[in-house]
Amino acid sequence: MTLFTFIEILGTLAFAISGIRLASAKRFDWFGAYVVGFTTAIGGGTLRDLMLSLTPFWMLDSTYLVVTAGALLIVIVSGPYLIRFNNTFFIFDAIGLGLFTVVGIEKTLAAGFPLWVGIIMGTITGAAGGVLRDILINEEPLIFRKEIYALACVFGGVVFGCCQWAGLGAGTTEVATALSVIVVRIVAVHFGLKLPILK
Amino acid sequence: MTLFTFIEILGTLAFAISGIRLASAKRFDWFGAYVVGFTTAIGGGTLRDLMLSLTPFWMLDSTYLVVTAGALLIVIVSGPYLIRFNNTFFIFDAIGLGLFTVVGIEKTLAAGFPLWVGIIMGTITGAAGGVLRDILINEEPLIFRKEIYALACVFGGVVFGCCQWAGLGAGTTEVATALSVIVVRIVAVHFGLKLPILK
Amino acid sequence: MTLFTFIEILGTLAFAISGIRLASAKRFDWFGAYVVGFTTAIGGGTLRDLMLSLTPFWMLDSTYLVVTAGALLIVIVSGPYLIRFNNTFFIFDAIGLGLFTVVGIEKTLAAGFPLWVGIIMGTITGAAGGVLRDILINEEPLIFRKEIYALACVFGGVVFGCCQWAGLGAGTTEVATALSVIVVRIVAVHFGLKLPILK
Repeated sequence: MTLFTFIEILGTLAFAISGIRLASAKRFDWFGAYVVGFTTAIGGGTLRDLMLSLTPFWMLDSTYLVVTAGALLIVIVSGPYLIRFNNTFFIFDAIGLGLFTVVGIEKTLAAGFPLWVGIIMGTITGAAGGVLRDILINEEPLIFRKEIYALACVFGGVVFGCCQWAGLGAGTTEVATALSVIVVRIVAVHFGLKLPILK
Repeated sequence: MTLFTFIEILGTLAFAISGIRLASAKRFDWFGAYVVGFTTAIGGGTLRDLMLSLTPFWMLDSTYLVVTAGALLIVIVSGPYLIRFNNTFFIFDAIGLGLFTVVGIEKTLAAGFPLWVGIIMGTITGAAGGVLRDILINEEPLIFRKEIYALACVFGGVVFGCCQWAGLGAGTTEVATALSVIVVRIVAVHFGLKLPILK
Repeated sequence: MTLFTFIEILGTLAFAISGIRLASAKRFDWFGAYVVGFTTAIGGGTLRDLMLSLTPFWMLDSTYLVVTAGALLIVIVSGPYLIRFNNTFFIFDAIGLGLFTVVGIEKTLAAGFPLWVGIIMGTITGAAGGVLRDILINEEPLIFRKEIYALACVFGGVVFGCCQWAGLGAGTTEVATALSVIVVRIVAVHFGLKLPILK
């Protein structure tokens, strides 16, 4: 297993657990919680792939299905003790967000679209799963009001563009992009940074 | 008209009526009720076709549009008397669920995907229309909490796989799959079987 | 800039502003308001393009992204004074609805589908963005209850068909279709015309 795969599994796990926990607050059954967790984990990438005219990535690799089952098991077994690991999940979620942003940008550029489409698709890959999750549990999307989230993906996309413009290699560009998403996200939550509310 | 077409129309009718009735409880107008009914009937198959990179099936055959109009007419004309036929609609709905699951699995395998994708797509074909319906009327999806529904499709998919593994013919496989979905659904409702709730 | 482009920008602006204003009523932040505005403006056409197996139109032209930014700026700067221009926005919205309907029908016919699919796609192009907007802000879709809206698109589609049947030229057909949508919409709001509610 490469480092990339390992990080992707961590991120998928964190996304799925966030969906399953919110579903449990709504008293969904196990199947409903699984569906919400899976949608949170793969929803953003699925939307991206549909708009890029590609087959949704999770239909080509059963890993995501299995990881979501693992997430459900963790939530069922750990129950209320899960709260102790909130910080761990937050870090996993931030790492996943960074990685998914990079994957979204690169898949879009590989499909022949310009950078601005790549930045949107990177943001959709990272943040749209959470929006679909909130639609499924019938709540107003959290990311439209809480600390900076999707904007961290947009920022990462700008960093990606700068790295390309500066002629940096693919590996350096990927790491810089993911790191900038993760750092913005951690800083935003640490200092409670929010965007202005529209009145 | 073949038996297959006849069953498909019955299932579409039952799905559309379930959407129209829930829309009427929200005091939607006729057009809104029609849209909710149509989405309930074709939503699952549309999601499946988009993910399989196929043209949504209802764009190639106006039957579904017409059947939904029939469903709207039935609800408008029958009004409160409709409640008497709840058991009939439940049976139609279960039959539709079984048939849609089979159609979803076979279309997915025909597109070259493995069985596990087929089972997911069969379940989406059967159950996602109801989820889209609940999103449109702004309610938490019913299938995530009520008696076993989507899981009946998953069970049918497993039966499909067993039939294939046993080398049974296409017709036998289809009937066994659809019947197993229908039986699981009827048994679940009769005994009020629900999955455990996540706490 | 052609007249067509000018009208399209006006319509996009009106759709985006309607999304941003409803998002502000929910106290979304600037980013959330932008996403809701953008989804309102491009959601219908995106759904249409996905079902026609085409690349979503806004991925090929950054105008829509920029116009939505303009809409956000207008709402932020004008604030409560925006209410004075409600009639102006209503007219822009009606014009946009007419134009989007024509675009939706023609794109569908160009993709080889029959007129009835074109009418549905024209209606989706015009009206589905507002439905997606209402899903994002967690409200019951407005168009399923308020004055005739989506039905104006259907009516426009029928006019389109009549023009074609009468052998009128493309330009005449387009103008007649768009005008009929706009007129139906204005008449409906002026007289408070609503469809019957389903009981």
